Amino acid sequence: MKGFKFAGIHAGIKMKGLKDLGLILCEKPATAAAMFTRNLVVAAPVILGRETIKKGKCQAVLVNSGNANCFTGNQGLLDARATASMIARIFDIPQELVMVSSTGVIGAPLPMERFKTGIPLLKEEISTNTNGLEDFTQAILTTDTCQKIVRLKGCIDTPQGSKQFSLIGIAKGSGMIRPDMATMLAYVLTDANIDAGDLHQALAAANEKSFNRITVDGDTSTNDTLLCLASGASEACVRDKASLKVFQDLLETVCFRLGKMIVKDGEGATKVIQITVRGASTQEDAFKASEAIAHSNLVKTAIYGEDPNWGRITAAAGRSGAVVDPDKVDLYFGSIPLVLSGCWLGLDAEKKAARIMKDSEINIILDLNLGDKTDSFLFCDLSENYVKINADYRS
Amino acid sequence: MKGFKFAGIHAGIKMKGLKDLGLILCEKPATAAAMFTRNLVVAAPVILGRETIKKGKCQAVLVNSGNANCFTGNQGLLDARATASMIARIFDIPQELVMVSSTGVIGAPLPMERFKTGIPLLKEEISTNTNGLEDFTQAILTTDTCQKIVRLKGCIDTPQGSKQFSLIGIAKGSGMIRPDMATMLAYVLTDANIDAGDLHQALAAANEKSFNRITVDGDTSTNDTLLCLASGASEACVRDKASLKVFQDLLETVCFRLGKMIVKDGEGATKVIQITVRGASTQEDAFKASEAIAHSNLVKTAIYGEDPNWGRITAAAGRSGAVVDPDKVDLYFGSIPLVLSGCWLGLDAEKKAARIMKDSEINIILDLNLGDKTDSFLFCDLSENYVKINADYRS
Repeated sequence: MKGFKFAGIHAGIKMKGLKDLGLILCEKPATAAAMFTRNLVVAAPVILGRETIKKGKCQAVLVNSGNANCFTGNQGLLDARATASMIARIFDIPQELVMVSSTGVIGAPLPMERFKTGIPLLKEEISTNTNGLEDFTQAILTTDTCQKIVRLKGCIDTPQGSKQFSLIGIAKGSGMIRPDMATMLAYVLTDANIDAGDLHQALAAANEKSFNRITVDGDTSTNDTLLCLASGASEACVRDKASLKVFQDLLETVCFRLGKMIVKDGEGATKVIQITVRGASTQEDAFKASEAIAHSNLVKTAIYGEDPNWGRITAAAGRSGAVVDPDKVDLYFGSIPLVLSGCWLGLDAEKKAARIMKDSEINIILDLNLGDKTDSFLFCDLSENYVKINADYRS
Repeated sequence: MKGFKFAGIHAGIKMKGLKDLGLILCEKPATAAAMFTRNLVVAAPVILGRETIKKGKCQAVLVNSGNANCFTGNQGLLDARATASMIARIFDIPQELVMVSSTGVIGAPLPMERFKTGIPLLKEEISTNTNGLEDFTQAILTTDTCQKIVRLKGCIDTPQGSKQFSLIGIAKGSGMIRPDMATMLAYVLTDANIDAGDLHQALAAANEKSFNRITVDGDTSTNDTLLCLASGASEACVRDKASLKVFQDLLETVCFRLGKMIVKDGEGATKVIQITVRGASTQEDAFKASEAIAHSNLVKTAIYGEDPNWGRITAAAGRSGAVVDPDKVDLYFGSIPLVLSGCWLGLDAEKKAARIMKDSEINIILDLNLGDKTDSFLFCDLSENYVKINADYRS
């Protein structure tokens, strides 16, 4: 995409020759907006990133995997600044336009030697390698089993005719995924021309409907970052209400698809489920009920067992704090009703629902029949493999 | 114990000849207090139980396992009443003094024929069998792997000298365990003489510090019931402040030990952990932080892997909503400090902490160093077996 270059290399932070250091470089300073974790325990790069983003500009993003630079005290913050400073010096850009992100193990000091030898390699790579985007995408992964890239194009009508712009979304995330925010790093790049304030507003709205509605295991990380950079290198100028709507919709789609990829790649996941709670009397109730279902280990293990266990789903809604009248609820697996007005429809309906459960993507709809408010969550099932991955991660 | 008789039989509700129908019978109407699930989706026996307990009296408790009589609509409520009526008729006691509890699969109608043939068998058993308490304890189990009984004796000083009284606590519970309330059935019986109001107050307080502070998997059931019956058959009269304190302390101990047994028998559990959060600035913060840690799948899997993963513990506290200053926290595994003032103490300390992790009972203390409020939770680890048990439960 116009205005952006990418690189990803193995600097020696991770073992086995895996790529672990990536860079996004903008030809000119890009307009920037970002969302960070709402966890009160935050990693050094997030503290630094919050400062940097205030100016609404960014020209380079350095990301390492294998080390989260979290719980590393004041030294961690000094180290984060030092890596930003290396990028600034070697690429000749102002240090305050450099964002850094880290992801990986918490508590170990950042291996600065690896950055000293790695960053010059990034410079070589970025000028020669045409496969930089893929390398970058690989370099930011941790327990992910696959790369996560989304590409979309949009059009904006202007007095000078229709002008195209592009969006590329890149994410990593597989465990420690939950709203506020889902644990991950995600970068969305666009060549659209948009103001920092509008970009921030669009990103916040897109985040709310995507990364804030997914869960793998209910834990938030200390390093979550969603960063959006707009180079303005295309002729698509996003200023008026209509073009902002077009941009907003596409940005939301990119974020939603990335979010879905993260859930699909959730640690040990075998299925992606969308739970929609409708008919709630308040928006908060719709959120609470869908969140409780998405986070329930009992629901998640039942889905892993391909069991349309409506008792666990309704019980999770019942404890969520949302107003629920058990005699009014309808529950659907795909288009198959299994409970209507609180009554189980019997073995035939259950057999049909059980067939839906064999799919790798499942829609479940719980209608509370108390109002007109709706919310929904994407989540994955819970398998023995999730336990295995997380019991073994550090040891 | 004076004033109570017990029985437990196989009535054919569960398969493989397992005991599934139990009865507690009081010689005379006992003073009664009870707590029920706070889930809004409740089973028929809970609806009935809430009515019955209002009078503060109870003479018989019928419990079946294998069927929860939940999501069974109006028929479920009629069935629950019908079983209470059978007990009343056969044992010649007023129907409004009969409590019923059900636990097991949600959604299937109560198999009334099994009760019709089973209840007369209970009558035979209760008059001839001296092993009734153990049979009853077995009859109420579902996925539990062991019986849960606690026996304690206490003394109250009276003008007529010291008077002894006894407490017996019986519980079932292994999955769907979380506060408000932990999912389970628990019955505490005493021969102390105490008023219904005092009994209710004592039970509420004991519940708050025991069953409301344990979790296995974060889900509440639809059938949770904690019932306390006082026969008054001993000479221990619990009336004044001092004797109420003695009774309260013992009741709390019984409930806490039963709660611990439930966590220890948590589905797939290999370890019991007590997390204590101290130094919180408010009581609510201490609760929130300890609850978030106890419910974190990442913490639970790390403990299963015997990994003193302080990053996950502090991150869970950080997202809990409690005020946490990462630079101030201390973290101990047993008596071993691993983090002091937000700084990791290094590999030697971690090795010592890792040795503590091999125990089957582990104490973890997180000191926020922001105030003087403390709370704590009992929880278990999360193993592949938890997933296996819950993926296979109905199928």
